[in-house]
Amino acid sequence: MTDAPQPDRRVNLPEVVAEITDIFERYEAALATKDVDVLDNTFWNSPHTIRYAMHENGYGFDEIHAHRVRRPAGINIKQERLKLVITTIGTDFATTNLEFRMPNGRTGRQSQTFVKFPDVGWKVVAAHVSTQEDKSLW
Amino acid sequence: MTDAPQPDRRVNLPEVVAEITDIFERYEAALATKDVDVLDNTFWNSPHTIRYAMHENGYGFDEIHAHRVRRPAGINIKQERLKLVITTIGTDFATTNLEFRMPNGRTGRQSQTFVKFPDVGWKVVAAHVSTQEDKSLW
Repeated sequence: MTDAPQPDRRVNLPEVVAEITDIFERYEAALATKDVDVLDNTFWNSPHTIRYAMHENGYGFDEIHAHRVRRPAGINIKQERLKLVITTIGTDFATTNLEFRMPNGRTGRQSQTFVKFPDVGWKVVAAHVSTQEDKSLW
Repeated sequence: MTDAPQPDRRVNLPEVVAEITDIFERYEAALATKDVDVLDNTFWNSPHTIRYAMHENGYGFDEIHAHRVRRPAGINIKQERLKLVITTIGTDFATTNLEFRMPNGRTGRQSQTFVKFPDVGWKVVAAHVSTQEDKSLW
């Protein structure tokens, strides 16, 4: 045991939720307009960053960046938000989880995991975007 | 500014990776055998916990637990592991990301976000499981 202070695990401190909400909304706007600088800047610039997209899996910042660049502009798969949950734990950790309706009528899900770094601030360290299966697999 | 110590952001400290790997493997075994106690115990017992599964979205521990109970035993959608990445940041935060081949030949992805709590230790606070789309949506 050490005499280190207990870590802060308070959930949804309003000022922390406000920080993440702001970053989240700027990222969503940048997806719609294909603002690669904002998209890149939202994610951790690290070989450890992972982004599972609908049809491709990006391992490391460079692969994720390449996926951003390759994607055509003007595509927005989020036709309508169905449910958005932003959860913060302490002052350095957060998740966002969004359910949305896609143009094809199916439900999409987007999950992001944020860590706050002393030097660069809040960054997404892992993300996962998918289509929900219509039926159970079992 | 405060004079609080800088948070620990060292990546993949071996002892932390070992802790997460152990929890991850016990969880995977419990999925295969439907050991609901282990599945439940791996997740944060909180209304804030979220688990996006292939075909359903669980908000809060109680919904996630109900999904566990409802699922038949003996179903393992993970026929083969394709890629597993466990990433830890400091001593209190981790992610796991697994790509796997499903019995239908498609690729599945499973992402988990772990936070270490002073009272209950490591818990999954958010998870997302999905099937990768075969083709680009654009």
